[in-house]
Formats: sequence, structure tokens, C-alpha cells
Amino acid sequence: MSRLLLISNSTSHGEGYLDHCIGEMLSFLGPIREVCFVPFAVYDRESYGESARRRFAAEGIEVRVLTTDRVGGEVLEETPAVFAGGGNTFRLLKTLQDSGFQGVLRRRTLEGMPYMGASAGSNIAAPTIRTTNDMPIVQPASFDSLDLLPFQINPHYLDPDPVSQHMGETREQRLVEYLEENDRVVVGLREGAWIRVEGDEAGLGGRNGARILRRDTEPEERPPGASLTDLL
Amino acid sequence: MSRLLLISNSTSHGEGYLDHCIGEMLSFLGPIREVCFVPFAVYDRESYGESARRRFAAEGIEVRVLTTDRVGGEVLEETPAVFAGGGNTFRLLKTLQDSGFQGVLRRRTLEGMPYMGASAGSNIAAPTIRTTNDMPIVQPASFDSLDLLPFQINPHYLDPDPVSQHMGETREQRLVEYLEENDRVVVGLREGAWIRVEGDEAGLGGRNGARILRRDTEPEERPPGASLTDLL
Repeated sequence: MSRLLLISNSTSHGEGYLDHCIGEMLSFLGPIREVCFVPFAVYDRESYGESARRRFAAEGIEVRVLTTDRVGGEVLEETPAVFAGGGNTFRLLKTLQDSGFQGVLRRRTLEGMPYMGASAGSNIAAPTIRTTNDMPIVQPASFDSLDLLPFQINPHYLDPDPVSQHMGETREQRLVEYLEENDRVVVGLREGAWIRVEGDEAGLGGRNGARILRRDTEPEERPPGASLTDLL
Repeated sequence: MSRLLLISNSTSHGEGYLDHCIGEMLSFLGPIREVCFVPFAVYDRESYGESARRRFAAEGIEVRVLTTDRVGGEVLEETPAVFAGGGNTFRLLKTLQDSGFQGVLRRRTLEGMPYMGASAGSNIAAPTIRTTNDMPIVQPASFDSLDLLPFQINPHYLDPDPVSQHMGETREQRLVEYLEENDRVVVGLREGAWIRVEGDEAGLGGRNGARILRRDTEPEERPPGASLTDLL
């Protein structure tokens, strides 16, 4: 009976932090007025936590910033909701693993605590972080992540630039490489889009839609508002 | 007394495979007329090996394509030179680790066997793969790689696009994240550029130059032809 809100990007071009998705976050939270913010994807956790605190205060929501100590563990056990912020996915997952919080976060979410993530925070909701765009700046013990969903997420999904002369792989080429090695559906979530899961139903919200990639199958486009329930 | 030729990209826009760097590869090889090609960064090793075989045959150089079996081990012990091709760095490193060839390749290169790499093949010459651009599609036992150099390489280094509305991290932002967690020089090697190491001297060749990034220091530009000896 998980409740998940998985956002591609926390800031949209020309808008403020979370502006494009805050309405959906508030709808998702319903009457909840307290959120535990996970700042581990960013190096300076304190200022990152402060940004989140200010942003949610403007909506009348109190933020408790997660720390890796015993107090943090208590916060994680008690909080009515979590929001894992974006940054570097390897750093986020490694910190959750090293602190022992990965299991707690998974258990509480499976028990029904609403989980919100943006970018790296959305990546770690999938079975593994194997479809992150981030640089492997630190080595987590395992790429296995929260496994709250049966499919992989690629946030900030980017269509190929037809005029680019850069020879690095396109995003789709990278995900095809993933599918060569792994047989699991990938949802390429464009900027502006999010996935909302309510128990056994899932749907695509926001702007720009998603590209669904499967092994040995042509990619499939889904527009904003489309159901993703068949992927659960 | 290592000899290394580390190329940013194996194909330049509008040119054929290795065309922009084959002259330097031939100069680097000198009288050597046989190369062991490491195809492990790509899923279809056979067709990848065939492409390399054709390309080098046009230059009068015979290619032996590395396999992970006992025969491959013998080839690696005997070959007068190695070229590790591009593709996915995680897949390349994991295959070298699983086959036990990582140590052999390192030892032979330190003993003086000329090592050439392109893209992923250049990434693995560094101490770790923590500055690769590739997606972590498989999990190697360790991010530690061949450690033939004291600095990290970021191949396909890409300057920020001033008109982009995409909110994913720029390459420089990703490397700054690396430097938050690791205190080691990074050479951002633009497409068209390469690093040539001859024992205790190193220099930058090809086109477009490199950007040198260090912790707590402004990035530094080096043009084609610049020395990199101070980084050894």
C-alpha cells in the first residue's frame, strides 16, 4: 500500500525551487503538515535543508531535516512523510546505506508513509540506481536501492538534440545499454513530469510525459495524465 | 615507465571511426604491427572487434580481439600493445575484474607495454572510474581501475550550453561534486583531444584542449600541445 510521488526535477527552467510541482506535493500530502527532508544527495546538507525548510514553510508545512545520527533515526521512525531531495544519487544512496537508514525508509514507506522524491530522490525509489544520470563520485556498497516500485526511473529524461555534434551517448543510447544488461522496464521521466503511486494504481502527472523503454521492444510514449498502473 | 595514449572519443563528428586520432596512434605504436583490442565496453563484442580489426587492417596493423577465456589471458600476456575501446565504463571495468585481467593489464602496462584507450578505455587508465559519464548499468566489485596515472580523466568533456533550458547538472557541476568527495586532479578532455604519456612526461594533443579541475581552485584551461607533466 505504498504512496509515492516521484518528481523528475525539483526546479524547472525559469521557476523557483519546487514551484512547478508544489501543488501536486500539497495534494499528495493532504492534511499532513510535517515532512522529513532527506538532504544527503548534496554535500552541504545544512544549507540544503534550510532551502527546503523555507520553501515548505511558505506552504505552512514544517520540515525536519534528516541527520545520520540517533536523532535522525528517531525522526525517520516518527515522521508522517518524507521528501528526498535531488543531487547526486550515489552520495544519497551511500549515505542511506552507511547510516543504516535504507531499510528503515523502505519499511516505513511499505507500511504506508507517503514518500516524495525529486531527481536523485526518485532514482532511489526504484529497485536499483542503475539508471541514474549521476557521476559515480562515491561508491555505495550496492546499487540496490529502496525497491518501492517494479520499474526503473530515469529522471531528467532528455530527447536527443538533432543538431548536436557531441559524440557522447544520447540518453536513449545509455538506457538501451542498461536494457542490454538488465531486463526491467525503464520510465524515462521528462523534466516537468512526475509519477504518483497510490497503492495499486499509478499515473503520470505534470508536463511533457514519459518514454517507456523495454528490452527488445520499440520505446513507447505516454502523455501527461496517462496511467502507469500496468507497470506495477 | 608507462606509455599511454588516452583519447577522449573514438569517433569525431562527421568523420569515420578513429579517423581523427589514427595518425597519433600510429606514431605512438612506432614499429609495432599488432594490437590487442579490448571490446568489453560494448555488448556485442564480436562485431565491435570486427570494426576494430577492419580499421587497423587499413593501416597494416593486425588486431587480436581479447576474450575472457584462457586464450585471452595468453594474448594479454604476449601482445606488444593494447587498445581498450569505448562504450560503457562500468561494463568494461566489471568484465576486466570478473575475468581477472585488471591486474594483468596493469602489470604489463607498468612494465612498458604501450596502452591506448578511447573514452571508457581512457577512463579506466585513471585511479578510479568515479569521473565517467556513463550510466551504472552493471555493478563492478570496485570503482578502482587500472591506476596508471595520478589524476582522473573525464572524456567527452562538454562545456555548458548557454542556451540550454535543461536542469540536469552540467559536466562541470558533476565534476565539482566529485571534488567535494575526492581530492584528486581531474582532466576534462574535450572531444578531439588526447593525453600522451611517455614515462615521466605527459602532454595534450589533438584539438580543443582540456579543462583542469582541482578542489578549492578555479578551473584551468590548457590548449592543444600543452604539457601535463606537472600532473604526473
